[in-house]
Amino acid sequence: MNKNKYFQKLQANYFFTDIMTKGRKYAEAHPDTRVLSLGIGDVTRPLPQQVIAAMHNAVEDMAHEETFHGYCLEEGNPILRKAIIENDYLPRGINLQLDEVFVSDGAGSDLGNTSELFDKNNRVAVLDPVYPAYVDTSVMAGRAGELVGGKWSDIVYLPCVRENGFVPDLPRKKVDIIYLCFPNNPTGTTLTRPQLQRFVDYALRHDSIIIFDAAYETFIEGDDIPHSIYELEGAERVAIEIRSYSKTAGFTGVRCGYTIVPRQTGLQQMWHRRQCTKYNGTSYISQQGALATYTPEGKQQVRDNIMYYKHNARNILNSLQGMGFEVYGGIHSPYIWMRTPDGMSSWQFFDLLLEKCQVICTPGVGFGSAGEGYVRFTAFATHQTTDEALERMKRL
Amino acid sequence: MNKNKYFQKLQANYFFTDIMTKGRKYAEAHPDTRVLSLGIGDVTRPLPQQVIAAMHNAVEDMAHEETFHGYCLEEGNPILRKAIIENDYLPRGINLQLDEVFVSDGAGSDLGNTSELFDKNNRVAVLDPVYPAYVDTSVMAGRAGELVGGKWSDIVYLPCVRENGFVPDLPRKKVDIIYLCFPNNPTGTTLTRPQLQRFVDYALRHDSIIIFDAAYETFIEGDDIPHSIYELEGAERVAIEIRSYSKTAGFTGVRCGYTIVPRQTGLQQMWHRRQCTKYNGTSYISQQGALATYTPEGKQQVRDNIMYYKHNARNILNSLQGMGFEVYGGIHSPYIWMRTPDGMSSWQFFDLLLEKCQVICTPGVGFGSAGEGYVRFTAFATHQTTDEALERMKRL
Repeated sequence: MNKNKYFQKLQANYFFTDIMTKGRKYAEAHPDTRVLSLGIGDVTRPLPQQVIAAMHNAVEDMAHEETFHGYCLEEGNPILRKAIIENDYLPRGINLQLDEVFVSDGAGSDLGNTSELFDKNNRVAVLDPVYPAYVDTSVMAGRAGELVGGKWSDIVYLPCVRENGFVPDLPRKKVDIIYLCFPNNPTGTTLTRPQLQRFVDYALRHDSIIIFDAAYETFIEGDDIPHSIYELEGAERVAIEIRSYSKTAGFTGVRCGYTIVPRQTGLQQMWHRRQCTKYNGTSYISQQGALATYTPEGKQQVRDNIMYYKHNARNILNSLQGMGFEVYGGIHSPYIWMRTPDGMSSWQFFDLLLEKCQVICTPGVGFGSAGEGYVRFTAFATHQTTDEALERMKRL
Repeated sequence: MNKNKYFQKLQANYFFTDIMTKGRKYAEAHPDTRVLSLGIGDVTRPLPQQVIAAMHNAVEDMAHEETFHGYCLEEGNPILRKAIIENDYLPRGINLQLDEVFVSDGAGSDLGNTSELFDKNNRVAVLDPVYPAYVDTSVMAGRAGELVGGKWSDIVYLPCVRENGFVPDLPRKKVDIIYLCFPNNPTGTTLTRPQLQRFVDYALRHDSIIIFDAAYETFIEGDDIPHSIYELEGAERVAIEIRSYSKTAGFTGVRCGYTIVPRQTGLQQMWHRRQCTKYNGTSYISQQGALATYTPEGKQQVRDNIMYYKHNARNILNSLQGMGFEVYGGIHSPYIWMRTPDGMSSWQFFDLLLEKCQVICTPGVGFGSAGEGYVRFTAFATHQTTDEALERMKRL
């Protein structure tokens, strides 16, 4: 048997392990201090009460023969898909058909698995810095080439840095698959409508597909920033959009998200077939929980959770600015992207912050070489942890 | 962008849709009769009370900050993985390490996704008849060749038919990946230890990998039939085993299963990397439900559910035998495999059964060409439905 040779090319990724190990070692060496983390991208607020009630009901449904649910549809409960269309898209003037909405166990799976829709021979573009899974998935699919000086030879990197105002340029050579993530993880920055339209136009001109990761959509304030790529002219022909309940309703441990594959992309039937062959549907309980986020009470409770994290984000943003740091993001996003002072490297600042303040951040270089010289702070901790971490940072 | 050309080769699979459509049309044309189904492979019993209680508790954990759970480990909760080792493997003398056990959202996903561990260039062998996903997954991976006369040119089919006592021969040409499913879906038959050992020995000799689908393991009676492929000498070097809570504890709508990838296969780290890149872990609630199946009460309740279905299986087996039909399976399996009388085709018998008895079965030809001339009955209906269906079949 021949193993997948592309898997062998993947570097062992010890990035997040290294962060945790450093934090743990410091805590062990200093048992009297409490190490605070503004590093992780995981939520901490409990689930909205409406979701909890719906999931209790769903569990109870499973306890009785008359209400028991076996296999759910691979593409998701039609009632949930209808709610997605009516709440997340119709109010923005976006018309979707029911069979263009695919519920899943989360954005992580869909981001990885949609890669199967394409031949090996496609050129991939990614933002730099960015969430590492797009690159890793492309390596696994044999689309990355060789790793040379920290970059993959066949991948086109689109820097998203202060020098271009965090607005990536269009690819200079023709690319086939473009992974975009806005609001961006890790920079917390967004694109305006005209800026995103340029990418859609590029894709229309070059017959490219955009995989649009909109996991942080709920953090967008107002209507000037596009909430969905389908707000842009022609996007329904060239874009797949992936969303998640993880960061809206706190579903990181519940697992539910959805992916829009418009018929006009020519990929809708392929994705349907993929899901029906390699996926057996999303947990009935998780789907019922997701459905509850669309009730009036559920919506309010989700908004309350988002406001809780947004309070942290503003707090971090303002405090760091007050301390004289150069910071980005944090408005339409739970992430604050900070330039390290005095030309320090990402890891140097990480170590300094841990030593001096016992606070953990995420070194920007872990998101790509253009992230060197930055660190990421997240708004997902509690108010108390966030406040105390910021107080301690005044020592810097 | 170039689409995955292998997806284009897949035939639209209308098999189960055709069954449902025929049933629905008949019911519409005969509004006074109740159509009974012994066709579906989905469970009908409510979940064990112990599982329900555990899932209510898990939902409640998510309602409070102190007990809230965010992302779970991609490879699954260590407590659940430990329970799997101690309950499902150690009592059979099988020693597994914690990192060889991967919890997932079900066997369907793992059966499809493990295909990524291998290069395109691997020859695949499948049983015939068999659950269609192995073939479809192989087509999607580019390993199937061309469809000629209902068979894929590059796939090696291993007939599992009455002529060989449902014991498949070893492949005559060298194959790299062998999908085995025992107790078999659809034939309901099993292999003895020496019969399965021949496949393990073949794999050891030819450096092949066996993907062993053990979804129906709980239906095995006694210890003469191997419950796990790792009971066989050397299997830990050449086999991946996939199991599910779907048919044991009724989790088809809850989604939880697990896959064993022994380190000695050389694939354990690859699978770990795959899951950490393209999967974000299994629902905390589903995992807590699965864990409850290992409590003393949970075990008893699972056994009670299995006994309920086994009662149906025996009933179908004995009744059909009593009517003079040639039947197989139904002892160590929820499936009864029946040879159609008088050389009828699978669909001819399906139509006859629907017309004369208003009972739905599954035409065997849907599982592969060697399934022609058979139909499958399942034990997953209620006692009442099963009894009435069998009573009606006396009219045949």
